[in-house]
Amino acid sequence: MSGALERLEAVLAALDAGSEAVRHVYNRVFTASARAAAAAADARARAGQPLGPLDGRLVSVKDLFDVAGETTTAGSALLRGAPPATRDAPVVQRLRAAGAVLVGHTNMTEFAFSGVGLNPHWGTPGNAHDLACIPGGSSSGAGVSVGRQLAEIAIGSDTGGSVRIPAALNGLVGFKPTQARVPREGAFPLSFTLDTVGPLARSVADAARADSVLAGEAPADLPVRQVRGLRLGVPRGLLFTQADDAVLTAVEQALSALSAAGARVTDEALDDWMGAPFRLQERGTLVAAEAACIHRDWTETRAEAYDPLVLGRIRKGQALDAATYVGIQQARLALQATLDHRLADLDALVLPTVPLLAPRIDALQDEAAFTRTNLLLLRNPSVFNFFDLPALSLPLPVPRPVGLMVVGRRGRDRDRELLALGAAIERLLQPR
Amino acid sequence: MSGALERLEAVLAALDAGSEAVRHVYNRVFTASARAAAAAADARARAGQPLGPLDGRLVSVKDLFDVAGETTTAGSALLRGAPPATRDAPVVQRLRAAGAVLVGHTNMTEFAFSGVGLNPHWGTPGNAHDLACIPGGSSSGAGVSVGRQLAEIAIGSDTGGSVRIPAALNGLVGFKPTQARVPREGAFPLSFTLDTVGPLARSVADAARADSVLAGEAPADLPVRQVRGLRLGVPRGLLFTQADDAVLTAVEQALSALSAAGARVTDEALDDWMGAPFRLQERGTLVAAEAACIHRDWTETRAEAYDPLVLGRIRKGQALDAATYVGIQQARLALQATLDHRLADLDALVLPTVPLLAPRIDALQDEAAFTRTNLLLLRNPSVFNFFDLPALSLPLPVPRPVGLMVVGRRGRDRDRELLALGAAIERLLQPR
Repeated sequence: MSGALERLEAVLAALDAGSEAVRHVYNRVFTASARAAAAAADARARAGQPLGPLDGRLVSVKDLFDVAGETTTAGSALLRGAPPATRDAPVVQRLRAAGAVLVGHTNMTEFAFSGVGLNPHWGTPGNAHDLACIPGGSSSGAGVSVGRQLAEIAIGSDTGGSVRIPAALNGLVGFKPTQARVPREGAFPLSFTLDTVGPLARSVADAARADSVLAGEAPADLPVRQVRGLRLGVPRGLLFTQADDAVLTAVEQALSALSAAGARVTDEALDDWMGAPFRLQERGTLVAAEAACIHRDWTETRAEAYDPLVLGRIRKGQALDAATYVGIQQARLALQATLDHRLADLDALVLPTVPLLAPRIDALQDEAAFTRTNLLLLRNPSVFNFFDLPALSLPLPVPRPVGLMVVGRRGRDRDRELLALGAAIERLLQPR
Repeated sequence: MSGALERLEAVLAALDAGSEAVRHVYNRVFTASARAAAAAADARARAGQPLGPLDGRLVSVKDLFDVAGETTTAGSALLRGAPPATRDAPVVQRLRAAGAVLVGHTNMTEFAFSGVGLNPHWGTPGNAHDLACIPGGSSSGAGVSVGRQLAEIAIGSDTGGSVRIPAALNGLVGFKPTQARVPREGAFPLSFTLDTVGPLARSVADAARADSVLAGEAPADLPVRQVRGLRLGVPRGLLFTQADDAVLTAVEQALSALSAAGARVTDEALDDWMGAPFRLQERGTLVAAEAACIHRDWTETRAEAYDPLVLGRIRKGQALDAATYVGIQQARLALQATLDHRLADLDALVLPTVPLLAPRIDALQDEAAFTRTNLLLLRNPSVFNFFDLPALSLPLPVPRPVGLMVVGRRGRDRDRELLALGAAIERLLQPR
């Protein structure tokens, strides 16, 4: 790998060239501070004193994390003129302390509230594999920044799939930890209950390096695990419905390869749990109610400044009553416990991250098509925010990007077993 | 102290005699199992093998804790015919394992939802010091059971003062720990956010013995602390308003005695925090919203079976919207952190547990008088449920019972410092 400054200059040159492929990926680029950080990393490398495995790596951060001296807009027009952040979010501080070169703030769905990745204020970055297709969201620029080699690792947030959806649609690894693993301070919130912070990268190893830093852990190699003997459950049912054939085919091929390599792959009837988030939240979701709280004042006074598609989702949350909200929270806790028990004999669940190939942007211009696609993109990943289980999206080796979601049992992000197991599956499915 | 069986028989005889003073204190008495437990404790004592400091002590439990083989009614008519509990609540199991003699289920406000202690279904036990006065609630029978020597220790629950109010009005010690200290499983809930479990007793030492068992700790003597040098803050302002003169006089005398004994007693301007629970919950409270969730079905189908005063409070919770509820929860977390910081240089806060002497039962027959008194009784104690701080009510040596509330900093129940400090204050104010 060449030096950090050299790699950074290549990114800056690509951004300067301004091709369609790089448009709308970053909302702002931290040119001067990135150059200084890259030069410092190179100096440490020359002195043989690197800070760790993230030293000198080019990292983009979603435009909802506070970076001292930069405005955080969360993809909105509302915050375009807001004063700059006075200090780094803890995760940003941890990345800097690990030597990461922060390239810039990546574009996102306004206030992180959709899985498609359209943004009428800042523009919509085209998918890394096909500019005419959606990038996935809400961490849209995060996905494309890594997919287009405008960053090596991207830091996103995931409330209902916002890391895993763009990872799946851009052919990347995306990791959503348990909520408590990574601090959320200094990140503009969408849902207090469900927000998580995680990386997108080209490999499980890079995602794991970033995850350790985000979690405040000392660097350590992942334990080496084998596919042989893994007990993988396939939650056939609801989460396999309404799927593109290409997605199902890719996932079935991956399952066959895992079986052939000695994993014990079993079908598991889990729809009592997989369907519960939707049954419980028919009258309104936790996310919408919490977004309605966060946006209470602005939806009164600045409604015209919102993306109407986002505002419509927030308005639904305003209609939910507190008793129903409390009931959803209580049912969630009870279901988490019973699902944990049900999964006790499995190492992981495997399923499509999203059931669709990236749709074309021009196919989502009317609200009904947008809503249908958005809910379908969010469906599978959001289940594991609801259950607060760690989940990884791995790219499958097919012409158009398809993600395989690997969901770990409770605590399998803390002990890094899910990432270790993901690395074993990656070696099998994506031999380098 | 005479044997457990002898002390139990005296209680059973008093209950059998059925004087007005013992009426409505217990909703059911566990005669046979209590006799067996008492006999076993006496046998252990004779053999020199007691289980610990609670072995053979007579303990009453509020009628919302599950006791295997007994119906839990939570003071309601609705649950009068419910099937018996199939197993003990964890706290009940811990009490039994410590050798406690469980005398019976004590009366309470229906579903624990008021601080007065009236109960139209099971009757209202008269105050231990004056039968014509309210017992305080919601752990009404708990307070009177200890006040009338029908138990030595009572286990109650406290969501907005339900342990501390009857302790104050019946001249007892009452202790509300931080919510996480004692498990709430097997206790009929009022508020998932605010419910706590704690003891009422005649002395801090007994309350501490019960608290250790409830928390699942090994028995250990309280550390010995001195009043000299204690830094006690007095939150003058809102929580000292609308108070009976006799209460203020008793509290001021106690503060003077503490000063004279070498405590550093300072006035603290804390109304930004003390008033916050009321400002934030003007449109509806966390308790009411959570009660509305818990009682969702019954308030539709069995409304006539409720105490109208309780039903009215639940109905208010049905009107609260989820976004406001979420906002209260978030503001609560932020305020807890800033109050913790503000209290860092104090050992405890001291204030009246409740601003009133126990009012007469016949003065609360109209709804307006009931509501006014109820809110005033709950006002001071509920603040420390909102902030989830440990709080102790100590009886002051005056003709009619007055409680002095001692509120500890965060974690001062875990390390037992609040109870140790309470014991030091008790030695000063109630020399034996």
